Amino acid sequence: MTGVRTIGVALLGLGNVGGGVVKLLADNAAAIEARLGARLEVRAIAVRDPDKAVRVVELDRSLVCSIDEAIERPDIDIVCELIGGTTEAKRAVLAAIAAGKQIVTANKALLAEHGVEVFAAAEAAGVDVYYEAAVCGGVPIIRVLREGLASDRIEALWGIVNGTSNYILSTMTETKRPFADILRDAQALGYAEADPTLDIGGGDAAHKLALLAGLCFGTPIDVHRIATEGIETVAPIDIANAAKFGYVIKPLAIARDHGDAIEARVHPALVPNNWLLADVAGAKNAVYVESYALGPSMYYGAGAGMLPTAMSVVSDCIDIGRNIFARAAGAGRATQPRPRIARAMLPLADVRSKYYLRFGVIDAPGVLGRLMTILGAHRVSIAQVVQDAGAEPVSVVVVTHEAREGDVRAALAEIDALPVVREPARVIRIAG
Amino acid sequence: MTGVRTIGVALLGLGNVGGGVVKLLADNAAAIEARLGARLEVRAIAVRDPDKAVRVVELDRSLVCSIDEAIERPDIDIVCELIGGTTEAKRAVLAAIAAGKQIVTANKALLAEHGVEVFAAAEAAGVDVYYEAAVCGGVPIIRVLREGLASDRIEALWGIVNGTSNYILSTMTETKRPFADILRDAQALGYAEADPTLDIGGGDAAHKLALLAGLCFGTPIDVHRIATEGIETVAPIDIANAAKFGYVIKPLAIARDHGDAIEARVHPALVPNNWLLADVAGAKNAVYVESYALGPSMYYGAGAGMLPTAMSVVSDCIDIGRNIFARAAGAGRATQPRPRIARAMLPLADVRSKYYLRFGVIDAPGVLGRLMTILGAHRVSIAQVVQDAGAEPVSVVVVTHEAREGDVRAALAEIDALPVVREPARVIRIAG
Repeated sequence: MTGVRTIGVALLGLGNVGGGVVKLLADNAAAIEARLGARLEVRAIAVRDPDKAVRVVELDRSLVCSIDEAIERPDIDIVCELIGGTTEAKRAVLAAIAAGKQIVTANKALLAEHGVEVFAAAEAAGVDVYYEAAVCGGVPIIRVLREGLASDRIEALWGIVNGTSNYILSTMTETKRPFADILRDAQALGYAEADPTLDIGGGDAAHKLALLAGLCFGTPIDVHRIATEGIETVAPIDIANAAKFGYVIKPLAIARDHGDAIEARVHPALVPNNWLLADVAGAKNAVYVESYALGPSMYYGAGAGMLPTAMSVVSDCIDIGRNIFARAAGAGRATQPRPRIARAMLPLADVRSKYYLRFGVIDAPGVLGRLMTILGAHRVSIAQVVQDAGAEPVSVVVVTHEAREGDVRAALAEIDALPVVREPARVIRIAG
Repeated sequence: MTGVRTIGVALLGLGNVGGGVVKLLADNAAAIEARLGARLEVRAIAVRDPDKAVRVVELDRSLVCSIDEAIERPDIDIVCELIGGTTEAKRAVLAAIAAGKQIVTANKALLAEHGVEVFAAAEAAGVDVYYEAAVCGGVPIIRVLREGLASDRIEALWGIVNGTSNYILSTMTETKRPFADILRDAQALGYAEADPTLDIGGGDAAHKLALLAGLCFGTPIDVHRIATEGIETVAPIDIANAAKFGYVIKPLAIARDHGDAIEARVHPALVPNNWLLADVAGAKNAVYVESYALGPSMYYGAGAGMLPTAMSVVSDCIDIGRNIFARAAGAGRATQPRPRIARAMLPLADVRSKYYLRFGVIDAPGVLGRLMTILGAHRVSIAQVVQDAGAEPVSVVVVTHEAREGDVRAALAEIDALPVVREPARVIRIAG
C-alpha cells in the first residue's frame, strides 16, 4: 500500500458520532479510497475519559491525545469537532482554525450561536468549515443549498428537522395516546434524551433553522430571535380535529424571505395530508424548499443516528481531501454566501398564516356568535367551524383563512377574557 | 463595476434550456455574483438558425458565432453543450475538451452512450465535465450522489426520472381515462413531444439510469443492456386493480448492486401507497436511495422545464467558477468515482421481484386451479388472487410473493398456451 496518498484526521470526541466515523471509515474504506484517490486516516482521538467502558467502537489507545496536541500536530489535516456544546467546542474549533487546520463540525449550537465569529476566523486563516452533519444528520441539505441550488433564489423553506419531535407527534397520531406517555416510552427506548427540552421545546430545530436560513438568504440569523414553540402542548384532540379537516400535525421549522425582512419560526403546525411533508413520519427529517427557478423540491432522510451523521462528517472530510489535493483548501467552497448583510427579522405579530383555533366554552346560545364577531372585528376571517356536542366545556374548533398573527392574538386575548370561555384558546398554525 | 472577476461562458444551443440559462443569469445576477464572487458572462452563443422567430429569450446577435469559434475563443472558460443528440454534440464536446474548456452538458444521451470516451478525454485534457442537468432536471441528484453521499455505499435506487411518463400515469390514475387519450392531450398541451417514443418507451429513463447507476456503483453501465419497458401497455383496469391491492403504478428506473453484478431496469411498477415515491405525482421527478450508512433518503423536484434545467446548468457553472478561482479546475471534482471496473449486468431472468399478473380466461371450473398449479410448479408463490365475475374473458388478478423473473416468464409461457386462456397475461412488476 505504499504510494497511497493520505489525509490525517483528528477526532475531538468519540461518542456516538465519533464512533460512527471510525466505523464508517473502516467499513467503507475501499470505496472512500476509490472516490478520493487517497486514504482518510484517523491519527488522533481526543476523549474526555479514555477509560469509559461503553463505546460504539473500541478506542485505539495509541491514538489518544489531548485536544491541544491533536490540533497542533503537523500530521493532522482535518479536525472533526464532535464534542458538542459551545464552550470547549468553541475554544477547540477556534484553536484548530488558528493552527491552520480544516474543520468539520456536527455542532449546530456552536454555529448557530457563534457562526459569525467562527466563519470570520476561518476566512482570516484561510481554512474551510464544513458542517453538513450539523443539520438533518445524513441528509445532504447543506450541500444541496450551497451548491445544487447555488444559481437559484430561495423563497421559503419548511423543514422537519428534529427527529425526536417528529417521532413523538407521529406516534401520537398513530396511537392516539397523549404526549407525556409517548415521551416516556421514547426515553425508555433511548429515542429521546433524559432531558428532552432542546428537542421537544424547539431549541434544536431553531439552531438548525438559523443555519439553513442563513445559508439560503445570505444573512446571519440571530437564533434567539426565531419565534420558537415546542410540541408539548399538542393534545390528542388537536391531532384528531386536524385529521377531520384533512391535516396532520408536524413539527416544522419555517423560513421565508420577505425581501426587507426574514421570517423564521419553529412550532408544531397543521400540514395538509396531500403535501409531501405530511408523509415524513417517524424520526425522519425532510426539508421542503420553494425557489424561484426550481420551484418546489424536497430532501428527505435520517436526521440523526450514528451512521447517518457520521456519513455527513466523512463526506465533508472527502470534500476537504479533494480541496487539499487540488490545493484549493480554504478557498471558500464551504463558506457562507455573501454579501452577509444583516437583515431585519419579521416580527411574529406580522407573520401571516392560517390558524387552527380550539375554544372551550359553556354551552349557551349566542356563544359561537360572540367568538365569530370578535374574530371578525380583528380581521380574522373564518374558513370552517365545528362545534362539538357533549359535556362542558364544549369545544369549538375554527380554521381561519390567512390572517395576521398580531390580529389573531388580539382577538384571542379578548375571547379568553369572556366569562363564557372556560379555558384559554389553543392555537396551532397551519402551514403549506 | 470594474474589478469584478468574470467567467466567460459559451452556450452551444439556445433552445429551451439555453434560453433559460440566459434568463436565469439575468434574473439572479446579483445573487450569483454574491455567491461566486464573480460574474458569469455569456460571451458566445452558437445557434443553428440565428433568424429563428420564436425563442424563450431574445438572441443578442452580437454574441452569435459558430460552435468552433466559441470553442476556440480564449475569453471562453466554460462551454455549455445544450444542443442535444449524440452527433454534433459529441463532436463539439470533444473539441471543447481538446481546446481545454470546462464542460457543462445537459445531454443524458451523449453521456449514456459515449460517457466513457468523453470522461477519458476530459481527464486526459485536465478539464471537468459537469452534468447535473442531464438527470432529473433541477433536482441536484448528481451532486448528492457524488458529494453528499461520497462516504456511503449505495445499495439500490428507485427513480421516477421521466416527467412525461409520470404525468401520463398520474393523469390516468386521476381520471381513469386510457393511455392514448392522455397522451394526445399531453401532446396538445406541449407536455409530451410530437414523437414521445423516448419518454414513454423508457429510453430517456434508461439513459438517466445509466448515469445514476454508473455514479452510484462506480462502473460504466451499458445503456443498451438495461432492460427497458415503456408505459404504453398500462391499462386503466391495471391501475384500478393496483389501487384495490394498495398500490399506485409509477414509471420507475431501478438499480441495485449485487456485488458481482449490477441490476438495472426501467419499467412501470406497482408502488405501495405508503411509500414516499407513491406521492410523487404529475410531472415531478424523485430518486429514492438506499445506502449502507444513511439508510433510505429521497430527492424530489422538477425533472424538466426551462428554468429548473437551466438552474442545474448555471449551478454547474458556479461550481466550475469556484474551481477556476481556486485553481482547481480539472482536478476531478466532477469526475466519476474510481476504480471504474466493468461489472456484469444481472440478466433480467435472474432479477427477483413481486409481480402483478392479469389473466383473461374463460369462465369454467378448474381454470383458476390450473393457473395456480402452473405458477407453483415454476416456484412462483401466490400472495393474493382476485377473480372477477362478468363477461368473458374473465379477469384473474394475481399478486405474487418475490419470485425469479425467469420462472415467472416460463410459467406465463405455459399458461398463455392453455386453450382456456383468451389473452396473453399482463405482467407488471411490484417495487418497494
